[in-house]
Amino acid sequence: MTDPLVVFQPSGKRGRFPAGTPVLEAARALGVYVESVCGGRGICGKCQVAVAEGQFAKFGIVSKAGHLSDAGAVEARYAEKRELAAGRRLSCSAAITDDVVIEVPDAFRIAGQTIRKDATSVGMVRNPAVRLCYVELEPADLATQSGEAERVSAAIEAHFGLAGVTMDFGALQGLQAALGAGARKVTAAVRVDGPAPRIVSVFAGYTEELTGLAVDIGSTTIAAHLVDLMSGEIVASQGVGNPQIRFGEDLMSRVSYAMMNEGGAGALTETVRAAVNSLITELLDAAGRSRASLLDAVVVGNPVMHHLFLGLDPTPLGQAPFTPAGSGAVSCRADEIGLALGTGARVWVPPLIAGHVGADAAAVLLAERPQDNPHPTLIVDVGTNAEIVLWDTKTLYAASSPTGPAFEGAEISSGQRAAPGAIERVRIDAGTLAARFKVIGGEKWSDEPGFADAVAATGVTGICGSGIIEAIAEMLMAGIVGADGAIRGPQTEAERARLVPEGRTFAYLLSAGEPRLMVTQNDVRAIQLAKAALYAGARLLMDRAGIEAVGEIRLAGAFGSYIDPSHAMVIGMVPDCALDRVTAVGNAAGQGALMALLDGARRGEIARTVAEVVKVETALEARFQEHFVAAMGLPNSRDPFALTRARFSLPPLAVPDPGQRPRRRKSR
Amino acid sequence: MTDPLVVFQPSGKRGRFPAGTPVLEAARALGVYVESVCGGRGICGKCQVAVAEGQFAKFGIVSKAGHLSDAGAVEARYAEKRELAAGRRLSCSAAITDDVVIEVPDAFRIAGQTIRKDATSVGMVRNPAVRLCYVELEPADLATQSGEAERVSAAIEAHFGLAGVTMDFGALQGLQAALGAGARKVTAAVRVDGPAPRIVSVFAGYTEELTGLAVDIGSTTIAAHLVDLMSGEIVASQGVGNPQIRFGEDLMSRVSYAMMNEGGAGALTETVRAAVNSLITELLDAAGRSRASLLDAVVVGNPVMHHLFLGLDPTPLGQAPFTPAGSGAVSCRADEIGLALGTGARVWVPPLIAGHVGADAAAVLLAERPQDNPHPTLIVDVGTNAEIVLWDTKTLYAASSPTGPAFEGAEISSGQRAAPGAIERVRIDAGTLAARFKVIGGEKWSDEPGFADAVAATGVTGICGSGIIEAIAEMLMAGIVGADGAIRGPQTEAERARLVPEGRTFAYLLSAGEPRLMVTQNDVRAIQLAKAALYAGARLLMDRAGIEAVGEIRLAGAFGSYIDPSHAMVIGMVPDCALDRVTAVGNAAGQGALMALLDGARRGEIARTVAEVVKVETALEARFQEHFVAAMGLPNSRDPFALTRARFSLPPLAVPDPGQRPRRRKSR
Repeated sequence: MTDPLVVFQPSGKRGRFPAGTPVLEAARALGVYVESVCGGRGICGKCQVAVAEGQFAKFGIVSKAGHLSDAGAVEARYAEKRELAAGRRLSCSAAITDDVVIEVPDAFRIAGQTIRKDATSVGMVRNPAVRLCYVELEPADLATQSGEAERVSAAIEAHFGLAGVTMDFGALQGLQAALGAGARKVTAAVRVDGPAPRIVSVFAGYTEELTGLAVDIGSTTIAAHLVDLMSGEIVASQGVGNPQIRFGEDLMSRVSYAMMNEGGAGALTETVRAAVNSLITELLDAAGRSRASLLDAVVVGNPVMHHLFLGLDPTPLGQAPFTPAGSGAVSCRADEIGLALGTGARVWVPPLIAGHVGADAAAVLLAERPQDNPHPTLIVDVGTNAEIVLWDTKTLYAASSPTGPAFEGAEISSGQRAAPGAIERVRIDAGTLAARFKVIGGEKWSDEPGFADAVAATGVTGICGSGIIEAIAEMLMAGIVGADGAIRGPQTEAERARLVPEGRTFAYLLSAGEPRLMVTQNDVRAIQLAKAALYAGARLLMDRAGIEAVGEIRLAGAFGSYIDPSHAMVIGMVPDCALDRVTAVGNAAGQGALMALLDGARRGEIARTVAEVVKVETALEARFQEHFVAAMGLPNSRDPFALTRARFSLPPLAVPDPGQRPRRRKSR
Repeated sequence: MTDPLVVFQPSGKRGRFPAGTPVLEAARALGVYVESVCGGRGICGKCQVAVAEGQFAKFGIVSKAGHLSDAGAVEARYAEKRELAAGRRLSCSAAITDDVVIEVPDAFRIAGQTIRKDATSVGMVRNPAVRLCYVELEPADLATQSGEAERVSAAIEAHFGLAGVTMDFGALQGLQAALGAGARKVTAAVRVDGPAPRIVSVFAGYTEELTGLAVDIGSTTIAAHLVDLMSGEIVASQGVGNPQIRFGEDLMSRVSYAMMNEGGAGALTETVRAAVNSLITELLDAAGRSRASLLDAVVVGNPVMHHLFLGLDPTPLGQAPFTPAGSGAVSCRADEIGLALGTGARVWVPPLIAGHVGADAAAVLLAERPQDNPHPTLIVDVGTNAEIVLWDTKTLYAASSPTGPAFEGAEISSGQRAAPGAIERVRIDAGTLAARFKVIGGEKWSDEPGFADAVAATGVTGICGSGIIEAIAEMLMAGIVGADGAIRGPQTEAERARLVPEGRTFAYLLSAGEPRLMVTQNDVRAIQLAKAALYAGARLLMDRAGIEAVGEIRLAGAFGSYIDPSHAMVIGMVPDCALDRVTAVGNAAGQGALMALLDGARRGEIARTVAEVVKVETALEARFQEHFVAAMGLPNSRDPFALTRARFSLPPLAVPDPGQRPRRRKSR
């Protein structure tokens, strides 16, 4: 008689095992990852599986719940103590008795709580670089001559299907105390992303607490997420302004500061690390998690942020040939960069794509995987430097383009950072030239009843990046600015209230409240320069790839995710594309950081992907200047998508319902 | 026509290479280790080889100097700048033109300067875990998009026959400064003992300075050697008393201190680390070497010293079941244990053999390799705990025996540590019972003219361990003590001057000077206990192995190396053995540490050897007590070697010429 066949779903991996083999053992033998903290003692309940019942013609078997052994004492005890859903079995305890199809629940808990819209771990694969292994040591005796560390390693090897386990010196130093406090029962944190498994921390007794950190260091904002690495859930999120801002608003002014001041780079490094450390403390407090459990971190940032965070000199990034100190992925100990995490914690930073295209762009690649697309795809991470990635269905190209800080509200007369009180949505009536708008933190449009109450806390304080883009796009569509970007003067008495002289030019009055918020001629020029740089960068990559159009455009970045794609296309920020193929994908860099944190295997993948990217240096390409100059103007039609519509046979442009937020992808 | 055949000696590795292949390239292709710091630029001169001329029937070739290309500009330049001995060629420059036999000079410079008699690196294999690689980087340019770190790694891979080179974060942090100071020429220190080569430090410009440290931490003395890892030479040696001595003379009193005092273990750890750090500073100053160049260290010690040095709790070592925190080899960063070495420096500590048999015993195994012997071999590392290793020609056995501190001069009425002024050699005239002696630091015997001058600096201050053993052996041979260990009373008036009453017993007056130095009845008892423990441990292992006699005995340890084997045998310290097969092998633990430092490959070897050792726990074996009791007496004959002589047909015991030091092995 042949042994029973066991099939694991969704992987489809299968094999025959002697009747009586525990499901967990069969899973390990087939390389199916089933979580287990307790190593098969029926304590942790992480190894739950279910039997898929029915006739499986594909495998030639009939699978029934009864094809596993009856639930024994271990499962009964677990069910009593910690609850076991109907149909669920502990794979460490349930033995195969006949042909069976086993469903492994998504290792990642789909119910993951989404705390911030723009960073969610739903749908990601959980395969962390650090795992927890609970072991119970026999009392030490004279017959066994090995040390405690060797006993712990041997127990892990015996119960967790790992080989060649060693203990790091840092963990060894805490081992005796943990064994004492835990009455010889300890949970070891084992790092599994190296050539051999290494115990990096040891906790007294049984614990399921294993925490990870994903940080996205932007020039303006630092966003961090604390993740439960056992469930994949984000347990706390927090953002703060990057305090380096006092050394300079944009990247180049910070590089200059580092260059011009003795110890300047050191001060910038200390400042950003202190901010990250504060964030960590806040996140741990908010989530009620121990620092000791925080054992893995992924940090992404543009090249300058990357260098300053890692304590590397950013000066070479400020001048040709923009050579980074290191462009490969960095893996270092948390304490090497002054971060206070748990014992043995490491920090991983994705590779830089080039001196101007950062670890954040690498994370975007990881999150978005444009190379899976069958059509040419453009991803633009909009910021002070726009990082642009193009997939032409064969090759990945990347470049960065110096858009300047206008998109972040700087260099704009009424500009401000995206914060409560800032105008983020604008609509202009082409007849009356009257504007209505929405501010961040206020739920209502300015012409709706109750608006004043809705913004009472902050008032209307300025215009943020997405607001200025909408304002200028609406001004263009209302005929207030022309293709050359000039704001026209008033033609009627009524228009004088909106189009007011400012020096030799005119400005558009967006809000007459206090403060008065205007869009000046200089503001339009600043946005023209910025969008021309962005457009030119994208065109340059398309030239390099030899393509004339793309099938999809994704706007990424803290700012990019709030841009309304239709308005962005009105002003010609991005190349032609069907409007419904232009999406805001949120903080893709942060998403990429989360993915790399949750799934250690992604780290090698992104390093390989980045190595294959064709780097295009905008400063070296004469055509960049040509594209830039050509893109300075604004599209000279109220329907700038004529070309696109013709190509994709789309109906005339419908301005999106003002009440709606820009379209986001479903998964978000 | 077939390609020329090249044979490398002494390894005999051979292969065919196209004419024009540089010798260095052929060596690398065949896995022959030829040193090169400059990666084949003709700068370092480390890759020198010579042609063996003649007819080599074995290889079927004729080898001639002319079968290498003529010396070109590179060799001429090197010879001019740094001298090139006649017949020597730079293998990076000399190309193969015809069949040739190449002699690779011993990688290790045999002329190694011997600074301390008891630690010399002569004859050891040099294959350090860290290598120096000099590279010259092209100016950074826009076309190459990789970072500086990746360029350095790539250059090393290209020039040094290494693959998969990465840079540690610690090295990355110093890279930009080194590149700047060295005008893009740097020397990288590459650690080659892991799964892949890792750059751990980067120095500006060209350097050949690479330093290692070997430390032997004894309960009483800490001995350290600084080694030039490029030549294998010991460049400085220094010993200091272990300042932990103020917490307790012997190991167990220090363990008690750790156990009884809050923070006691921490204080012991801090004390020994501070002493090692001071030693390091002194050694670097003495040798004129930079701390930055000190990148590798090996530290050995008994289990208690091992634990205290590494910051582990020694308490479990003080009571059954004597379980160490970790018994495997420890590799840690120097800064993890508070040692100030260069950037990226690591410290390696050999495995413990058991809770009582330390990393020092493992080092002894490494240095002595008893398992290479065709006859049963006993190695005794004499100290407060004697560590005993037996090779029975099939298996290695190890045990430790609690000899107590008597052999180190403690618990002896006139005892003292081995230091200038201490009596270390004793002869007693069996007729007159008069004693003559030598003291440490004095060249003359006490009955020779000029003795007083020779010891003027210190006087005669006490008796050290080797002195008390000789005194008691001589007393036995002179009939002053009997087989039961009792000191007899005077039988003549003349004897009253030497055999003086002390309480109810008698004492022997060794020196009538100031202070008066006596050997009391209690002293004899203390030595009886100590030697019985040592003997019983050795016998226990022989029982386990089922052998009755050994073919060789080696006395190791700071103390063991000064014991006169014949006197040790007179009092029955060690089992019977032909006298000329009993040798003092010096500080074998320190030698082992040096070997592991010079040859990284030895580290894995010792770990494998230790894993195979059969550990015998004396406390568990009833026969240990039996042997101990039986061995308490002193051999009851003036010729205690009757048995040995009969077995080996040796002439009657000849007491060695008093003028001679005990026989040491030639290699020392």
